[in-house]
Parts: sequence; C-alpha cells; structure tokens
Amino acid sequence: MFPVINGVTAPAQKTTELNAPEHTSLFDLGAWSAVQLAVIERALSRWVASPSDAPAPAGLGDAMRYAVLDGGKRLRPLLVMAACDAVNGDASVALRPSCAVELIHAYSLVHDDMPCMDNDVLRRGKPTVHVQFGEARALLAGDALQALAFELLTPDDASVDARAQARLCRLLAQAAGYQGMAGGQAIDLASVGLPLTSAQLHEMHRLKTGALLQASVMMGAACGSASPAALDALRDYGAAIGLAFQVVDDILDVTADVATLGKTAGKDAAQDKPTFVSLMGLEASRCYAQELLAKALDSLQSSQLENTHALRALADMLVNRQH
Amino acid sequence: MFPVINGVTAPAQKTTELNAPEHTSLFDLGAWSAVQLAVIERALSRWVASPSDAPAPAGLGDAMRYAVLDGGKRLRPLLVMAACDAVNGDASVALRPSCAVELIHAYSLVHDDMPCMDNDVLRRGKPTVHVQFGEARALLAGDALQALAFELLTPDDASVDARAQARLCRLLAQAAGYQGMAGGQAIDLASVGLPLTSAQLHEMHRLKTGALLQASVMMGAACGSASPAALDALRDYGAAIGLAFQVVDDILDVTADVATLGKTAGKDAAQDKPTFVSLMGLEASRCYAQELLAKALDSLQSSQLENTHALRALADMLVNRQH
Repeated sequence: MFPVINGVTAPAQKTTELNAPEHTSLFDLGAWSAVQLAVIERALSRWVASPSDAPAPAGLGDAMRYAVLDGGKRLRPLLVMAACDAVNGDASVALRPSCAVELIHAYSLVHDDMPCMDNDVLRRGKPTVHVQFGEARALLAGDALQALAFELLTPDDASVDARAQARLCRLLAQAAGYQGMAGGQAIDLASVGLPLTSAQLHEMHRLKTGALLQASVMMGAACGSASPAALDALRDYGAAIGLAFQVVDDILDVTADVATLGKTAGKDAAQDKPTFVSLMGLEASRCYAQELLAKALDSLQSSQLENTHALRALADMLVNRQH
Repeated sequence: MFPVINGVTAPAQKTTELNAPEHTSLFDLGAWSAVQLAVIERALSRWVASPSDAPAPAGLGDAMRYAVLDGGKRLRPLLVMAACDAVNGDASVALRPSCAVELIHAYSLVHDDMPCMDNDVLRRGKPTVHVQFGEARALLAGDALQALAFELLTPDDASVDARAQARLCRLLAQAAGYQGMAGGQAIDLASVGLPLTSAQLHEMHRLKTGALLQASVMMGAACGSASPAALDALRDYGAAIGLAFQVVDDILDVTADVATLGKTAGKDAAQDKPTFVSLMGLEASRCYAQELLAKALDSLQSSQLENTHALRALADMLVNRQH
C-alpha cells in the first residue's frame, strides 16, 4: 500500500538487520504503517461493527460498516498516530481519535457522493454507499458516523483523561464543521463553473480538506505533551500537508486513470470545478506540491521534536503518491 | 406559547402577588419558560450566527440559521434547563448543552425533510431548508449543525469543567447516533408499509425521539450533582416523556389541522407509516399518553429531588399540548 519513498523508506528487512535506532534516517514507513494499520483496522472493525455490543438497526450498521471498512488509505489515522509518536504520547490513547477522524472522513465521503452533491457512483473501487444502500440510508449512515466519532472520543472510563477527551472533541468538531470541512464543501458547491482566485481556491481547500488533516495532527499531539512552540510547528506542518494533499489530488485527477485511482477520474474538469491544475497548470502544480512538502518538513525541523520520522515520511508519501 | 395547564400553571401575576415560594404547586411554567427562552434564543442566535466571529461561508450560515432560529418550541433546551434546576445545577453551564441539543434536533429535521427521506416541504409554517436553499446546502447545513453542537459543548476555557464537557459530549453523541436518533430513523425508514408490533413501534420511538429527549434531561442533570438513585429516576422520567411525546405527536397528526400544527398534517397515514394511533386507536392512545405522564410524574416523586416543578410542568405541557 505504501510505496518506497526515496531517502525515507528502506526495505523492512534492512531496518531489522541493522537494528537501526528510530532516530536515524532509515525509518521504514511501510513497516511502521503496517503495524499501525493492523491496530487501526481492528479497532475500526470493532467500533463500527458494534460499539458496546448494540448493533445498529435496520441495515444502518451495514451501511456504516460499508462506508468505513475494507477501503481507504487511512491517512488521517496514521497522521494521528504519527503525531502522537512525535510528542511521545500514549499510542493506546491515540487509537480513539485516530478512528474518530476516519469516521468523520468516511461520513463526508458518503454525503459528498450523494446525488444532490457530487453524484458519484464509484468510491474506492466499489459502488458508493447510496448506490448500494439507497439515498436515505446513506444520509443516515453519514449522520450516525459523525455522532459515533464523538462517542468514540468520550469513553465512560478513565482510559482517556477528561481534559484530553474535551480537547479532542473540540478539535474534531471545529475541523468538521462550518469553519472546516462542511464550510469548505459549501464553498466548493458554490464555486462550480465560477473562476476562483488563487486566494479563494486556497481558502476552499484549507477548509474542505486541510482542516481535517491538520486536526489529525493536532489530535495526535493532544495525546502527549508538547511546548506551545512545538504545537505551533505541528500546526504549520498540518496546514502545509493539508494543502499539498489537495494539490496532488488535483494533479492525479487529470493524470491518473480510474483503475489506479479507485474512483472516477477527470471528474473535476467534467464538472467544471476550479482546481490548482486549472488555475496554475500541471507543471506549476507539481512544483507547488514539492514546495509545500519542503515547508512541512521545515516545520517539523523547527518543532525541535525528536521523533518526527513518521510525520516526515507521511508528508513525503502523500506528496509523491500515485493514487 | 405555553398553554395554561390545570393544576400546574397559574397566571403570572397571581404568583407574583402571593410571592409564592418555588416549592408550592403554583409554579408558573409560562413565566419560567419566557425567562429561559429569552436566554436560549439569544444564545442560539449568537452561536449559530457566528461562533467565534467567523461567519460560515457560501450561504452555509444562512441555511444553518434558517434551520435553527425563529421557530420551534425549544422543548429540548427547556428540558435541559429544567433538569439543571432539579439538581440545583448552574444555569450558565446548562446553556451550552441546552443549545447543543437543539442544534442536533434542528439538523435532524433538516435531513428528515429531504426528498430522499420524508420529502416534506413545510416545517414550522415555513418552506423546509432544502426547498429554500437547495438539497446540497441542506445536507451540509445539517452536517455542520451536528458538528457545531459538539463544538458548543467543548469551550476552550474554564467555564465548563472538562469532566462535564466530556460527559455532555458522550450523552449527546449516544443519543444522536446509531443507538439513538439515527438508529430510530433507520427503523422508521425500513418500516413504511409494514405492520409493526407494539414492541417494535416502541423501540423505534424510544430511539428516534425518546433518546434525545431523555438525553436533554440527563444533560441538564450533568450540570449539577445528584445521587445515582436520583439520576435513575430522571432517566425514567426522560424515557416516559420521550415516549409520551411521540404518542401525542401521532394523535395530533390525525386530529390537528395544518394551521395549528405548522407542518403537514395527516402525513403519517398518507405515507402508510405505523403509529400509536394506527396500532391502538385514538382513544387508547390518549389514555396511554396520560398513563405515561403519570409515570413521568411518579419518577420525579421518587427522585426525592425538591426543585422539579419545571420538569413536572413540562411533562404536563407536552402531553396536553394542542400542537
């Protein structure tokens, strides 16, 4: 799932053979991700299938599971875990926010794919939720996934400190709502067929995609302790990768085919949506993505946090990904 | 807005003249509600218009405000405030959960009215949100309102204790999600045209309407302190009024006209939806509503809480309402 990245990823066996300490450049993103993903997928499967053993009624659980399980790169959960690593946080605490942010992402895809929005029929190589389960159930599954995200963040036990629970809810709610993802989608919706300025396009994506990616980083950071300066640096890192992610998405929308992408390609152009590629051209967009990567890595450098290997590797991976 | 209720509500001037202490039966629901509603409406208006002074973009804020402001009986916020009173809680703390639960209720109406769900065009005497703003914006406004509810519950200051913030989020998330409102709506959706047993109808409404009403009570109770036994009694009260509310709703759907109801009347029968009236008949439904009211009042009695006047009066009002 994770491509080898020049200068960042080394083959798993090599790391093992050398018994390389984590602070060298021989960080193995593939191996690290595999370990994280095994835990994340198991947790998602448990929590979305039947949190507290009360299955969701009337096909709602099926639609929720379909929307979340067996698909997705889990970039946001990995960012949570990586940021938790960076602040020497407790990975077992980070698991809930890791899954919660993925539920928000999954719900947004379900609603975004609906006929009244993007009207998309293919997602992660499968029929979209409303195609599979009908529009009404897709709507409800999305709504229930958003609620479940906040339920996951607030376990009724001492496993997560109450102050951390409240902070995690705040970060997620702000990133998901009108000042974040939903706000960005509203701009997106209002912008079809309109010429956007660069500033407007940036603002749209800062909200639509950037806010939740940045929140993933900050939620991971909330699972440990870091200086205000380090938190600021992580916030800058999150903003840079959030924007880079969208620039690369726009590039892939015109360069990748549907089989690689797992979703309908070329749909932005077909829907006459403004993109970074339509605004600045393909080559300039590629350069811009690399600039943003450099900026993200500089932010990590300036954070003075030591254990940022996973955050570095994830930034590199998401800018240089092929799908 | 609030009718005079036999044995519970006395005219405002009479209470004042007698200078009646709160623990007498001369509790004035109208006067109490007017005070609460002034505060609640002002808070909703401030928080939905521009929380932290960042207006929602691209018409999203307009749709959110339209969905929330200038309409609605605010039953759930009043239950929060009344339950807060009952446990001698801090009313200024209860204001956020009071508004948060109303945002969840408002979002559920927006989504529920959409063409893929109930396809309703009239709500509170006004065109529904998707009629006024289009389906896509209605979908997003609902999503953003749900997120805003959790944002309201988690202010980044010391005004609400972190443990209370976490508990409030937990109660609201559970009541809104697959084990609550969304789950009930899924059953509702799957039940059109099907004969439901009494047990199935009860389960549907326990989730669809009851969970959020009960959560309103428990969220208010979370703003103060009460014994486990008192909390159990309040939970029973919440369950009884939650169910009674739906029984009365079903009665009004066949007995009230559209002008009184402010929404399309007779739609349950038209859509061949199972209701308490279709299951047990009109007269038996009326008796059942009164039984549930008695049960709710008994629960308050057994709670041994002293200041339950507002909860008593609200129960009476919602069972004996005409719209």
